[in-house]
Amino acid sequence: MIEQKIRSEVRDIIDFPKDGIVFKDITPILKNPALCTEIVEEFVTRVAHLKIDAIVGIESRGFLFGMLLANRLQKPFIPVRKEGKLPYKSIKTVCDLEYGTAVLEIHQDAFPAGSKVLLHDDLLATGGTISAAVDLIQQLGGNVVACSFLISLNFLDGKKLIEEDLQKECIVLLEYQ
Amino acid sequence: MIEQKIRSEVRDIIDFPKDGIVFKDITPILKNPALCTEIVEEFVTRVAHLKIDAIVGIESRGFLFGMLLANRLQKPFIPVRKEGKLPYKSIKTVCDLEYGTAVLEIHQDAFPAGSKVLLHDDLLATGGTISAAVDLIQQLGGNVVACSFLISLNFLDGKKLIEEDLQKECIVLLEYQ
Repeated sequence: MIEQKIRSEVRDIIDFPKDGIVFKDITPILKNPALCTEIVEEFVTRVAHLKIDAIVGIESRGFLFGMLLANRLQKPFIPVRKEGKLPYKSIKTVCDLEYGTAVLEIHQDAFPAGSKVLLHDDLLATGGTISAAVDLIQQLGGNVVACSFLISLNFLDGKKLIEEDLQKECIVLLEYQ
Repeated sequence: MIEQKIRSEVRDIIDFPKDGIVFKDITPILKNPALCTEIVEEFVTRVAHLKIDAIVGIESRGFLFGMLLANRLQKPFIPVRKEGKLPYKSIKTVCDLEYGTAVLEIHQDAFPAGSKVLLHDDLLATGGTISAAVDLIQQLGGNVVACSFLISLNFLDGKKLIEEDLQKECIVLLEYQ
């Protein structure tokens, strides 16, 4: 089962980036190309009921499977990036992170208004980043049809935030309770 | 021809990130999934003569086609990241960029010593980032068999640096003279 395969490749890093945090390192997954393909196919299955016009991936680890999935589905890939990185006209928003805050940006011409958007990141923690990205997409007139993650740390309540507060479908391959 | 197709999708951004710089914005390419697939297939053709054990991509735009290519070739993908981003034991090096300096890191267990590595980034400018990444790979006992880029700004001499000084094969899909 894909959840077990992913779990067995995730590496726990104690006290990173701060004391008391157990960081989920996905780099061992990236070294396993067969598993990467299985992950993409699992996402394809999980989003099959959705009409998707574009995939938005969050810098920088959201670029990894976000780009693979966009290519597999033959949909446009749109980056959300940290402040000052996107070269064209952009809109921005501030987000609260598990550790600190950040400013995220998206190009004004990322997608046409009314687009159905799948929002992707590698890991869901408190949901601060995702809330900010949903806000950016909605400012551009996009409709977030689902949020997808490789991993969710459910004990940080990001999944609850997405499902209950944002009222969005939340697709997760590996959940830590 | 692929070069023309890429050229027609690259957007010039004047005075970004600094006055006097014409930035090559690749986000329109990412919105064109058929072209993204053509780009990956072109890279596959251009590296067909090489034995490759792993693909190293440089954060964060090098993650985009680096990950697609790694998945297409079913090879491990290894990220080189900015300082403080990689959670596991890492080695680091300083690099000179077209505008400023940066510290790059790679995990100590990125690949076994003796691995044949394809190094990938989206754009080649002065070659400062690539020189630093080659240094990291060689510190780990890896052998860089080629460097691949979507775009090279040849007038900034990065291609010359890679071919003449580093004595590495340089694969570029779109060159600006």
